[in-house]
Amino acid sequence: MTVTSFTAADLAGRYALELRGDGQVRVEGVGTLARASAGQLAFLANSRYRSQLADSAASVVVLRAEDADDAQGTTLVAKDPYAAFAKIAALFEHQPARPPGIHASAVIDPSARIAPSAHIGPFVSIGADTVIGDGAIIGPHCVIGDHCVVGAGCELVARVTLVVRVRLGQRVLIHAGAVLGADGFGLAMDAGHWIKVPQLGGVVVGNDCEIGANTTIDRGALDDTVLEDDVRLDNQIQIGHNVHIGAHTAMAGCSAAAGSARIGRYCLIGGAAGVLGHLEICDRVVVTAMSLVTSSIREPGEYSSGTPLTDNRTWRKNAARFKQLDALARRVLAADKE
Amino acid sequence: MTVTSFTAADLAGRYALELRGDGQVRVEGVGTLARASAGQLAFLANSRYRSQLADSAASVVVLRAEDADDAQGTTLVAKDPYAAFAKIAALFEHQPARPPGIHASAVIDPSARIAPSAHIGPFVSIGADTVIGDGAIIGPHCVIGDHCVVGAGCELVARVTLVVRVRLGQRVLIHAGAVLGADGFGLAMDAGHWIKVPQLGGVVVGNDCEIGANTTIDRGALDDTVLEDDVRLDNQIQIGHNVHIGAHTAMAGCSAAAGSARIGRYCLIGGAAGVLGHLEICDRVVVTAMSLVTSSIREPGEYSSGTPLTDNRTWRKNAARFKQLDALARRVLAADKE
Amino acid sequence: MTVTSFTAADLAGRYALELRGDGQVRVEGVGTLARASAGQLAFLANSRYRSQLADSAASVVVLRAEDADDAQGTTLVAKDPYAAFAKIAALFEHQPARPPGIHASAVIDPSARIAPSAHIGPFVSIGADTVIGDGAIIGPHCVIGDHCVVGAGCELVARVTLVVRVRLGQRVLIHAGAVLGADGFGLAMDAGHWIKVPQLGGVVVGNDCEIGANTTIDRGALDDTVLEDDVRLDNQIQIGHNVHIGAHTAMAGCSAAAGSARIGRYCLIGGAAGVLGHLEICDRVVVTAMSLVTSSIREPGEYSSGTPLTDNRTWRKNAARFKQLDALARRVLAADKE
Repeated sequence: MTVTSFTAADLAGRYALELRGDGQVRVEGVGTLARASAGQLAFLANSRYRSQLADSAASVVVLRAEDADDAQGTTLVAKDPYAAFAKIAALFEHQPARPPGIHASAVIDPSARIAPSAHIGPFVSIGADTVIGDGAIIGPHCVIGDHCVVGAGCELVARVTLVVRVRLGQRVLIHAGAVLGADGFGLAMDAGHWIKVPQLGGVVVGNDCEIGANTTIDRGALDDTVLEDDVRLDNQIQIGHNVHIGAHTAMAGCSAAAGSARIGRYCLIGGAAGVLGHLEICDRVVVTAMSLVTSSIREPGEYSSGTPLTDNRTWRKNAARFKQLDALARRVLAADKE
Repeated sequence: MTVTSFTAADLAGRYALELRGDGQVRVEGVGTLARASAGQLAFLANSRYRSQLADSAASVVVLRAEDADDAQGTTLVAKDPYAAFAKIAALFEHQPARPPGIHASAVIDPSARIAPSAHIGPFVSIGADTVIGDGAIIGPHCVIGDHCVVGAGCELVARVTLVVRVRLGQRVLIHAGAVLGADGFGLAMDAGHWIKVPQLGGVVVGNDCEIGANTTIDRGALDDTVLEDDVRLDNQIQIGHNVHIGAHTAMAGCSAAAGSARIGRYCLIGGAAGVLGHLEICDRVVVTAMSLVTSSIREPGEYSSGTPLTDNRTWRKNAARFKQLDALARRVLAADKE
Repeated sequence: MTVTSFTAADLAGRYALELRGDGQVRVEGVGTLARASAGQLAFLANSRYRSQLADSAASVVVLRAEDADDAQGTTLVAKDPYAAFAKIAALFEHQPARPPGIHASAVIDPSARIAPSAHIGPFVSIGADTVIGDGAIIGPHCVIGDHCVVGAGCELVARVTLVVRVRLGQRVLIHAGAVLGADGFGLAMDAGHWIKVPQLGGVVVGNDCEIGANTTIDRGALDDTVLEDDVRLDNQIQIGHNVHIGAHTAMAGCSAAAGSARIGRYCLIGGAAGVLGHLEICDRVVVTAMSLVTSSIREPGEYSSGTPLTDNRTWRKNAARFKQLDALARRVLAADKE
């Protein structure tokens, strides 16, 4: 195992950072400010933790100009230390070898077209009329159905399912257990029984999207379910049929959007938050964790629902009063009138 | 690829709809009222969207009698246009070929009985004493354990796991990633450590049920976990051990029912709603999204919990007051007495 | 199939229980008090159900001393009947044969080290430098990546994914569909696009942990995500990167902990409850179902948030008033001053 190593001066040059101190210090890895050892690079993005600078053993620290004076050793000054750190850390990421070619165990429909530079892992199955682009990595146990497109540079880590009519742009990263293109939840009641509404659409995912482990994105009923470019979904998110998510929006774990919801660009949807169906959220909306969006949002900003956590005994008393809230308000208003 | 095509008159006859206009118009597909092109059939179920009729390029529209006058071209009048549309759309659904037979890669216990008309896909594994019925489709990567029954006409789309003692009725449809029959969450604290309570029951699923992607249904501790006929579960639903769900009940994505809950027939459980364990919900109850059912419900109707979404600043102020709600109520009541 | 059978006297001796009645009664299985048949053993842990004793057909009942007088037949008196029952029930659990050895279909990197006593099922893939310990069971379709350790006596039921750098202690039980070691959700905004923060840490799971179906545990960004010994996670739980969960803590289905949250020992996190990132919960905290922990908890006890369920019409009125709560409180306080 060869050790990857860079000098501080190398890194400064590569990412256009201002070097302060000894540029010949070598960096062989990255760590947190608190736990980094000699030879590692750490970062300080939040001035609140500035006091950790004094005790850090990191050989190099990436930080803002205003925090640089508190650092002892070599520093790299960045406008956005976290983004700079992300780029530097990528140099030290372990990337397992995924050589081009198709594993002997894979089962591939004769009508599928697989780029010679793509990697198809063990136990992969690929359906009819599906296309796998240049350099794509299809990890072990992925199931790709009929009429799918996996763009150049995509990676399906392992055990990802694209059911049918799923079209991925370029460099889409999908984590284990995700299911794209399952039937949307379309039902009609007919003489006391449910009948299934066929789900004839697909899923379209833009470039540079990331989709978390065990996340599910249903295909559209008639039109497609759409993720624009650079959408980032965490784990265990549920996206209903015909949802449309604007570019650069990020959704945290366990959040969900119901059928035909339309979420704007640059939105941040908090963990376990929900968006009801058939409504619109404009660009640059933040929804805090476990909030429920029940009507369209037309102004950028931060939105919340829910009640604060308290000890259970206090909560019980207040929650009981919630049931009387309208009556209580009426009394207050009546008293005011008097 | 041959084009499926029907005349409007064909469709009227097939589904007992009233034809208005030119019965010889051909339908080669379906679409939304807004986006359908010539040759496609669309539907209007909600009179609110009646204004779309004027601009629709659809060759045929399924709608209610009271909306029919606004339509230009050929219409099919239905009492329930959505249900009628669902049936018509099914004619145009792409059904991949799933020929009878067992894929060479499948690993099947010698004691399992597989109907000759069943389709067993690549990388399927089937355990001891398991029975697969007539015409069942077991998609790629399904894992079926010991002592399971898959009834006639069932479809396990892909990557479905039936752990042990799971018995499916007929025509059950299970989407990718679902896990039925995992251990219920049974623990007993013993001298400061958890010990596991064995989960000796199974899962029984009635006819015509549908189970969404990545949904989990645990097997019972002693008796079985039960879904009656025609239960419809969306994606990422969690059903605890010994839950009993009545016929024709539908649960939306990310909802959950904890151990031994009993949900009635014809209930609708909203997205991300929760039902605590060991309680009963009677027939025809609607629970709105993200509500939590904490005690038994004995009257049909619609039930809710939660607070409305507002901008975060307003929410913070109101939420802080929630903590004082009991004190506030006491003041109001005291003032009233005076 | 041989029948497992024990006398009541056997069981009393084995688990240090007090035998009352006929010790020669044979037990061939277990059941609930309500449904057990002759030859079965049942338990009564909650005195509320004591009236069921009279009608139970169970041949032996495990119960507390104070309930024993109401029982008709043979009883086994235990301080904790549920824990005693758990141990007895384990005698009757069906354990499918999982003989040592590697299934012919498995794909195993030459650098992996597999204990000869381990069972590796069909369609398993195991990556580079991974170690599988003595007696471990790797069920069908598990995907184990590079640099993982599966300790002695672990069981991965089926279709479990360990992505990379996941280290399991001994006797860890992981249910179908769980994903450990996926990328944490680390993003930095850079010139209007997200860039990915590499996730260089791993996941460390202590001894005797259990992880539910379709649960996801992300690997750490720099340090590891940690579960101490005897942590019990139900299904569909999401654990973010760098979360630390103390020993003997149990989390119910659909709950979640966001990045860098630190949960203490002997905590109980209710179903669908959430814990925000970068906060701490001390030992012995109970969080009730669907509550959201938004700041650190420093005192043991039970905590809750949310509002009670009511019929929708009542809820609508009260929820509307929640939006006016601060204004309402101000009026009350102002009136008080007057």
